[in-house]
Amino acid sequence: MNKLDIDALDQADLLGSYRDKFDLPEGIIYLDGNSLGALPKGVAERVATVVKDEWGQSLIKSWNVHDWYPQPGRVGDKIARLIGAEKGTVVSADSTSVNLFKLLTAAVRLNAKTHPERRVILSDTGNFPTNLYIIQGLVDLLGDGYEMRLVAPEEIAEAFNDDIAAAVITQVDYRTGRRHDMAALTARAKAVGIKVIWDLCHSAGAFPIDLSGSGAELAVGCSYKYLNGGPGAPAYLYVAADLQESIRPPLSGWMGHTTPFDFDLEYKPAEGVARNLCGTPSVVGMSALETALEVWDDVDLNLVREKSQRMIELFAETVDELCPDAGFSQVTIYPEAQRGSQISLGHPEAYAIMQALIDQGVIGDFRAPNILRFGMTPLYVSYGDIYRAVEILAEIMATGSWDQPQYYARSAVT
Amino acid sequence: MNKLDIDALDQADLLGSYRDKFDLPEGIIYLDGNSLGALPKGVAERVATVVKDEWGQSLIKSWNVHDWYPQPGRVGDKIARLIGAEKGTVVSADSTSVNLFKLLTAAVRLNAKTHPERRVILSDTGNFPTNLYIIQGLVDLLGDGYEMRLVAPEEIAEAFNDDIAAAVITQVDYRTGRRHDMAALTARAKAVGIKVIWDLCHSAGAFPIDLSGSGAELAVGCSYKYLNGGPGAPAYLYVAADLQESIRPPLSGWMGHTTPFDFDLEYKPAEGVARNLCGTPSVVGMSALETALEVWDDVDLNLVREKSQRMIELFAETVDELCPDAGFSQVTIYPEAQRGSQISLGHPEAYAIMQALIDQGVIGDFRAPNILRFGMTPLYVSYGDIYRAVEILAEIMATGSWDQPQYYARSAVT
Repeated sequence: MNKLDIDALDQADLLGSYRDKFDLPEGIIYLDGNSLGALPKGVAERVATVVKDEWGQSLIKSWNVHDWYPQPGRVGDKIARLIGAEKGTVVSADSTSVNLFKLLTAAVRLNAKTHPERRVILSDTGNFPTNLYIIQGLVDLLGDGYEMRLVAPEEIAEAFNDDIAAAVITQVDYRTGRRHDMAALTARAKAVGIKVIWDLCHSAGAFPIDLSGSGAELAVGCSYKYLNGGPGAPAYLYVAADLQESIRPPLSGWMGHTTPFDFDLEYKPAEGVARNLCGTPSVVGMSALETALEVWDDVDLNLVREKSQRMIELFAETVDELCPDAGFSQVTIYPEAQRGSQISLGHPEAYAIMQALIDQGVIGDFRAPNILRFGMTPLYVSYGDIYRAVEILAEIMATGSWDQPQYYARSAVT
Repeated sequence: MNKLDIDALDQADLLGSYRDKFDLPEGIIYLDGNSLGALPKGVAERVATVVKDEWGQSLIKSWNVHDWYPQPGRVGDKIARLIGAEKGTVVSADSTSVNLFKLLTAAVRLNAKTHPERRVILSDTGNFPTNLYIIQGLVDLLGDGYEMRLVAPEEIAEAFNDDIAAAVITQVDYRTGRRHDMAALTARAKAVGIKVIWDLCHSAGAFPIDLSGSGAELAVGCSYKYLNGGPGAPAYLYVAADLQESIRPPLSGWMGHTTPFDFDLEYKPAEGVARNLCGTPSVVGMSALETALEVWDDVDLNLVREKSQRMIELFAETVDELCPDAGFSQVTIYPEAQRGSQISLGHPEAYAIMQALIDQGVIGDFRAPNILRFGMTPLYVSYGDIYRAVEILAEIMATGSWDQPQYYARSAVT
């Protein structure tokens, strides 16, 4: 595609104006919003207000006068709208891993009521490892014959057997960008009597999700990727309305108590999804997230999806056009319906190539063992950015400028 | 005590200059730093830098270039110094409740190696309820005959029997301010083969703690009370060096993996206390905490303890002097060695009285069913503040101005 065509795409882009809602560094093409989303304007000001005026001046009274107390549910409802969930089915809390532990425990216990003999928790090898570690931790804690079973991502539907209690499925594979079919897998899981916990980390804010319409029962996700909530922002969890009262939270902290300020000695779960809260919420971080979510107030996620797919294709075509012989194995080979919002290229020297790219102002990331990963965030990345990013990549590959000692030095976080 | 004497106390106060290190509202006497500590100067600026410059400008690279990644251990080491723990025994993470779940599970499993028949988790009725809820949640999850046993606070030492696997003890009672003897209880627990998890929420930053010297094995605590880390700031946990390698974390998230960025499918715990980390840490909140902790760099906690005790006594004496007939039952009647850093007064109309006090600029808090609670934070409260607070209380009691309809209207958070 030539530059005129790309300019035309950007000029016609209905999401083009959203870039102004973010504070982005000059001279950077940021293709890692699937790892840490960019900073929305207004967040810094909101955080400053929470710290200086609310905490600093209203002190403890802020829990009431600045409405800190209802924040987990309020933020949850804002996220709910973005993931196709009903009001009152989502709360913001803790980390994704902690929330997965809560809901996986809930899933296993719920399933035990109908299928007490089942002992397998299923997942796939494309799942983000922390999810597998959480499964392993729970299996180890429960003992009693519980085990984790891993299959290849494309085999998960066929692996839904009648010895499986629960499954943990990340909708979009963090490495390949391959997307599972939520509605189909949910239907099949229900038919076999399996409780599924969906991980939406690489889905929320990347495309429309229809938890409710899919019949999904349980889900978790983080808010610091496509939702732009900030580093380590509070995660969220979803429990379908009809399951909420059956859940006995394993992490039964006071914020999930029906009347925490009565200071009862006995735990009595709150009504609804709020019972899945645990300790005191992270007010400063959650305030950043709450403001970050305002960007989404009038965003049509169908437009986001459409643009992300055209960007993926533009990226792939431009790689084919500008560096066909660079030795990339293109990992994202899926039909559109199976794609998330990223493109991944395989290369034996992926790490060094990515460092060279970052050095040239194109920020993607490396994923072991050999993946260059580029996330598409249509709200603040243009078609022109994509083309330019691949031009820079092609230049690096053509000149071999990635092959320098400093680019092999591994950072703590890759 | 007359006002001249009180002025003299403040003039001789070696901690008097620390008040300048905090941003406090004008005209307020803040006696609730045991619930939410005041805002240290510099925190707002640090948070603004993290949001605008680090997240906003360095984006994902910040994990490396701004040293976000080692923050949980770095902050843990800063807290360690304040609680008498060795370097490398504390990490900052999650909430107190989540951390208690982790360490209580660890305690039960460790104990099962030596005393597999024990099924009781002990605590006392003065413990903060969320701790009891966490015990109830774990007991319920483990099944297999596990149970919680509660005794009165003063009976806990005698309750250390050979059917007890673990005990959860909050060093300072959130209502009465009564302090348990950590060294004595730890020694006794070890003699009987019980693993104790200490909750230091109302201890850290209030007086010197000697975890290491007491032989304490496991502890958790929050950082938003006397440590001034901000609302919902990340909590911390402590594991004595000799136990660290025996712990198999139940919440085994990727941040506790030995090589998280290898993205292994199999969980392998990190060496040391770091294995007790779980999901991605709350960077913004933890940065506020990290800066807040700088206040403590040159503080002598013995001076803090000494001043807090004199403040408690001044408060009590002034109540006796100015409102002897107001109908207060003084809850904090303990000898100094058994005191924390608060004073509590009982009154049937405690809630309304506290609202009237807050309305007059004296901020303490109410704890169900009938307690007016006043926390002593020697870094930013003067003896003059204490005297003035009781003067205002006495006036409210003398005039009966607390007895107005608006003071009975309950807030969500009390």
